[in-house]
Amino acid sequence: MRADAVRNVERILRAARAVYAETGPDAQLEEIAQQAGVTIRTLFRRFPTKADLVRAALEHGIAEVLTPVVERALTDDDPLRGLVTVIEASLALATSEYNLLAAARGAGTLTADASAEFYESMTQLAQRAQDAGLLRADLVPDDLPRIMGMLVSTIWSMPPDSEGWRRYLALVLDGMSPTAGRHLPPALKHDRISPTAHALA
Amino acid sequence: MRADAVRNVERILRAARAVYAETGPDAQLEEIAQQAGVTIRTLFRRFPTKADLVRAALEHGIAEVLTPVVERALTDDDPLRGLVTVIEASLALATSEYNLLAAARGAGTLTADASAEFYESMTQLAQRAQDAGLLRADLVPDDLPRIMGMLVSTIWSMPPDSEGWRRYLALVLDGMSPTAGRHLPPALKHDRISPTAHALA
Repeated sequence: MRADAVRNVERILRAARAVYAETGPDAQLEEIAQQAGVTIRTLFRRFPTKADLVRAALEHGIAEVLTPVVERALTDDDPLRGLVTVIEASLALATSEYNLLAAARGAGTLTADASAEFYESMTQLAQRAQDAGLLRADLVPDDLPRIMGMLVSTIWSMPPDSEGWRRYLALVLDGMSPTAGRHLPPALKHDRISPTAHALA
Repeated sequence: MRADAVRNVERILRAARAVYAETGPDAQLEEIAQQAGVTIRTLFRRFPTKADLVRAALEHGIAEVLTPVVERALTDDDPLRGLVTVIEASLALATSEYNLLAAARGAGTLTADASAEFYESMTQLAQRAQDAGLLRADLVPDDLPRIMGMLVSTIWSMPPDSEGWRRYLALVLDGMSPTAGRHLPPALKHDRISPTAHALA
């Protein structure tokens, strides 16, 4: 891509995140193009469907907000603290990009390809926390996207940008504790291509 | 409603559940009308939009499958066992009506009005379990639909009709145990009219 094309994409994605945040899950593409200072033709050339734009805007948010947190968390002396920090940052992102996430659910096209790297890092942290006896030993990597999906699901019953998810994170962390007692039934393979998959799941 | 109209509604809803289960979340209304033995006009007179039909079909499933379980659970000597039985029956229903539930998510019109009575019964069981020291004392009624929503969210990453949700139920029950140790941040009021609310949430 030429440098001006790269700049246009960056401006479109930043505008998309801002306009969705302001106006709700039915944000208008014309308004996004206008705020980005590009023509609607340019926007459509880069993002042929609204679903493409929504997915790219979410990935933009993940890259900008989450990636630096994950990198720091991987160097945390306390792997459980690192893991919890990553989960908290993900849920804070999910609430700040609430409308984009709602649009992605509506579009029903979101896959979790973008977050493969994210889950690899989470898996590393979780395994180190297990080795240190800080996390129940019977958790497996396929549990992590489902646990994230469970936590993200709570935000739809709350006002956008609230921190009400913290209560359910505490509850789920208690269930993930090494002293939690129930036998866990087997984990099914996580089907990442589910048409209705959550953004971060 | 006249007796034949009542019969038609019953046949349409039963056909809707069967056709959705067979053909997926994009089931055709013509096929449902045909299987119910009514004209498409009759179907549209009773259910002006697909969202109306999907919601009514889910309510039909709840009334048929869940209500008897809830009534029995309310008389269980062990209120925690009663509560768990109700949660298990709900998740079994959610997986058997997977496609209807997926269609409802897509339609984005589902409210939880239908399940107000359901959550009242769950609240009764949860409070009795708390009184008996079987459930953590800091859970409040608004937690119950969110916990159900979390558990339902896990089914989208699994094949329809699987029982993989049992693993996450065990994990969450460990978090709901009276010996679970974390301080829970405050519970926000559950916003039942969220446009993207889950069927059972």
